[in-house]
Amino acid sequence: MGKLSPLRSTDGHTTLLPSSDILFWNSHFQEIDRSGTFLQLQIRQMIVTAIEDGRLPLGMRMPSSRDLASLLKVSRNTIVIAYEQLVDQNFLVARERSGYFVTGLPKQIAGYRDSGPPSVRAEQSRWTERFALRPSAFRNIVKPLDWQNYPYPFIFGQFDPTLFPTNDWRESARAAMSVPEINNWARDMIDGDDPALIEQLQRQVLPRRGIRARSDEIMMTIGAQHALYLIAKLFVTRETSVGMEDPGYPDARNIFGMLTSNVIPLRVDEEGLVPDEAFERCALAYVTASHQCPTAVTMSLERRRKLLAIAKAKNILLVEDDYESELIPEGNDLPPLASLDRDQNVLYVGSLSKVLAPGLRLGYVVAPAPVIRELRALRRLMLRHPPLNNQRVAALFIGLGHYRTHLHQVARVLFERARLLDQLLPKALPTCRWTRAAGSTSYWVSCPTGTDATRLADSARAEGVVIEPGDVFSIREDDTSHCFRLGFSSIRTDRIEPGMKRLGAVLSGT
Amino acid sequence: MGKLSPLRSTDGHTTLLPSSDILFWNSHFQEIDRSGTFLQLQIRQMIVTAIEDGRLPLGMRMPSSRDLASLLKVSRNTIVIAYEQLVDQNFLVARERSGYFVTGLPKQIAGYRDSGPPSVRAEQSRWTERFALRPSAFRNIVKPLDWQNYPYPFIFGQFDPTLFPTNDWRESARAAMSVPEINNWARDMIDGDDPALIEQLQRQVLPRRGIRARSDEIMMTIGAQHALYLIAKLFVTRETSVGMEDPGYPDARNIFGMLTSNVIPLRVDEEGLVPDEAFERCALAYVTASHQCPTAVTMSLERRRKLLAIAKAKNILLVEDDYESELIPEGNDLPPLASLDRDQNVLYVGSLSKVLAPGLRLGYVVAPAPVIRELRALRRLMLRHPPLNNQRVAALFIGLGHYRTHLHQVARVLFERARLLDQLLPKALPTCRWTRAAGSTSYWVSCPTGTDATRLADSARAEGVVIEPGDVFSIREDDTSHCFRLGFSSIRTDRIEPGMKRLGAVLSGT
Repeated sequence: MGKLSPLRSTDGHTTLLPSSDILFWNSHFQEIDRSGTFLQLQIRQMIVTAIEDGRLPLGMRMPSSRDLASLLKVSRNTIVIAYEQLVDQNFLVARERSGYFVTGLPKQIAGYRDSGPPSVRAEQSRWTERFALRPSAFRNIVKPLDWQNYPYPFIFGQFDPTLFPTNDWRESARAAMSVPEINNWARDMIDGDDPALIEQLQRQVLPRRGIRARSDEIMMTIGAQHALYLIAKLFVTRETSVGMEDPGYPDARNIFGMLTSNVIPLRVDEEGLVPDEAFERCALAYVTASHQCPTAVTMSLERRRKLLAIAKAKNILLVEDDYESELIPEGNDLPPLASLDRDQNVLYVGSLSKVLAPGLRLGYVVAPAPVIRELRALRRLMLRHPPLNNQRVAALFIGLGHYRTHLHQVARVLFERARLLDQLLPKALPTCRWTRAAGSTSYWVSCPTGTDATRLADSARAEGVVIEPGDVFSIREDDTSHCFRLGFSSIRTDRIEPGMKRLGAVLSGT
Repeated sequence: MGKLSPLRSTDGHTTLLPSSDILFWNSHFQEIDRSGTFLQLQIRQMIVTAIEDGRLPLGMRMPSSRDLASLLKVSRNTIVIAYEQLVDQNFLVARERSGYFVTGLPKQIAGYRDSGPPSVRAEQSRWTERFALRPSAFRNIVKPLDWQNYPYPFIFGQFDPTLFPTNDWRESARAAMSVPEINNWARDMIDGDDPALIEQLQRQVLPRRGIRARSDEIMMTIGAQHALYLIAKLFVTRETSVGMEDPGYPDARNIFGMLTSNVIPLRVDEEGLVPDEAFERCALAYVTASHQCPTAVTMSLERRRKLLAIAKAKNILLVEDDYESELIPEGNDLPPLASLDRDQNVLYVGSLSKVLAPGLRLGYVVAPAPVIRELRALRRLMLRHPPLNNQRVAALFIGLGHYRTHLHQVARVLFERARLLDQLLPKALPTCRWTRAAGSTSYWVSCPTGTDATRLADSARAEGVVIEPGDVFSIREDDTSHCFRLGFSSIRTDRIEPGMKRLGAVLSGT
């Protein structure tokens, strides 16, 4: 037994434990996050993990609650509650006057394996021969996953913690945890959705975009991307000619490109997609009318009408990705194609990800009933349905009016950020040009010809500024390699001015 | 103004309202569910809906809290809280001494449209020409969606409300609603998963099946079905020969059949899939080793070893769907193929749906790292990732030891049901034969030749008994049209005996 070390719990108890014991117990509790709430839960998780791993063997005596409290510098009560719960769960057993002991081992422990050698890196070639396709080779938008750690994240479509309606979401989530609600959402709905969410989309979400839809004309998806994938799968064969805005959304291009060898690049001008002769050759075309992705121009009303007229005459199916809807009401919002269409040539894709949180993956598609019927059968085959508990929470959130309140709040903040950027851009980037549609949460910035925006983004990131280089949006990378996207939905308003200054300095330095 | 009617609130206040007013207000509150908790939330939802629909117009005066409480027969305080919240949200405005008034209308109301005529039923043919495939035409398992309303649901793989770990799930869900946790799960993870859930699978879920996996060998999916779809998409081209157990899982058969015209039926005997010459011709084969779907036989250890040896020799990729794992520990559980495999010829598919709730859609795949890498890229394209909030709740649920506790609880109940059915089957269905693997939650029942199990199921349902007819499981319907699946994971234990009696009576009556 080693040296005795005095330790003190948060409620003032002091204990003496042998230092070998301290080392042992500390090894199990090294990861406690004191900034987090739920200290007691963290301690329980760590004990459970250690028992499951076999690091705390059957029959081992646990430290007394006083000793462990002192060791972890928490209150003794936290440990008492944790131990009692673990006794209820049969991980520990309490023996009178002698303390708590580890009980019941799991039946089979094969061990946890992040320590072993990588299993098959050497065998990559063997797998490559077997693959029917190589999705990892597609060109994608690359955003740093740790963008939240950068002080100036001018990133598009990401989550802003300061805008998330924490309390209202919690209220809705709690309401969805009542026993009758659990019985609703715990079921396998086969190809169905939560009728309450469909109804809320009909009543409160779609009307804001001028869209009327019956319940059999709406289906939920795992984010808007999933809607695009399902539509592509339903309509596109190897030979289908699919029109793709160029520059355009890389994920849509990849989805269509996986299914057909006949992706037709479509021109984009300051009024959006150009309905030229190439467009007329398409069987299906992908359109971002509200805010063209990535150039952020709005399609004029005249262009929208023309597109619909040609679609009708040439039997072209339009897939309208209203990915961002109109988060910021400024100027005259134009109705989406789906709202103007009288001939059912538009399949409309929308999302709650941008308004709420991308991590929730709540998207939807509005289409004629025969299309929804097939999409449901396809979705059933692919994954049955999006998780129903999230559907129910979203239905409650919208139904309780929180969606409307939240939209107002988001709009106010984003409007302010856009005004600030309107002022700052000419000063910070005097050699660049930019476009931004009313309502959009990003600018599309063109640097002087010859600028390599990928290198610019790398240099900016070294200064803590995240922007999205433009090359990936074009079918031929060169076309937009001097451009970048500047998003402002995820950067704190007070970070915009210093961030723009840094970006300007980086650009003039390159 | 009409006749005055006296009304009384639950706290004893009596009011007089004109009966025209009563009619008007009752029309807005007709759907209150008094059995549900959260009365106040229901009332708020109804007022929000009526305002959004324009049924409560701008400037309209709301009834006083006393009057509305009397009208709805709730306590006045419920109404006061609801009104105050609606004032905070700017749906109502309070004017001193004169009450609450409807305020702020949404910008654009296109109206809610379940009343109009069906939009395009007449135009079905126009759409049929456009579809690249017709998933709605696939033969699927058909379960009554309202199975919970039948007294004797011998249905497979559905949710049993009496087994759901309500309090433990709530604790985990609440913990996932702290601000730091929201910041974790609200993000777009692109192609990632919650590392905490992957770690819990490694530590607590997979070891129970004898599987060791590195974190780069695991990916989450929207239920096990999604894992099958992704694997099929990654490995199967038009020409790939895919072996499918026959009888087998119809959804897997449909997924493979959508991609290749070369689905090879594989025989199943009392030891499971037969590794015959047909098997040797496959590039990929779908296997349910633990409990063959639907016959519920367990593959012998010898057969497992033989399958793996042939897979190695002939370079056959095995997709092991361990859909039910071993919910009931009885007899000697055999290790899954993935646990016996030393040559990386097995892709393992698992699910938390059967243990927790199908509505959550939590599945996963374990495969060599190069495969997971491509599956992640494909999943990214399809839908990015399963909702992260559910991933985090599941990670907490497992990490807090609730998963283990819950498994024990479920096992105890299901074991008892299986023993009961073992006794009842010979008495209730004396002319039938049946199989059931140790650990399985269903029996596969063969009626005397000539019995039409679909008609039997229809007759049984009229008596309140739900069973699943067998024809859909076979490639040629006739092969299993005299069989049915009898599940017991969703029927209350005390309903089993009367249910079996009724089923027996129906069978002897046909």
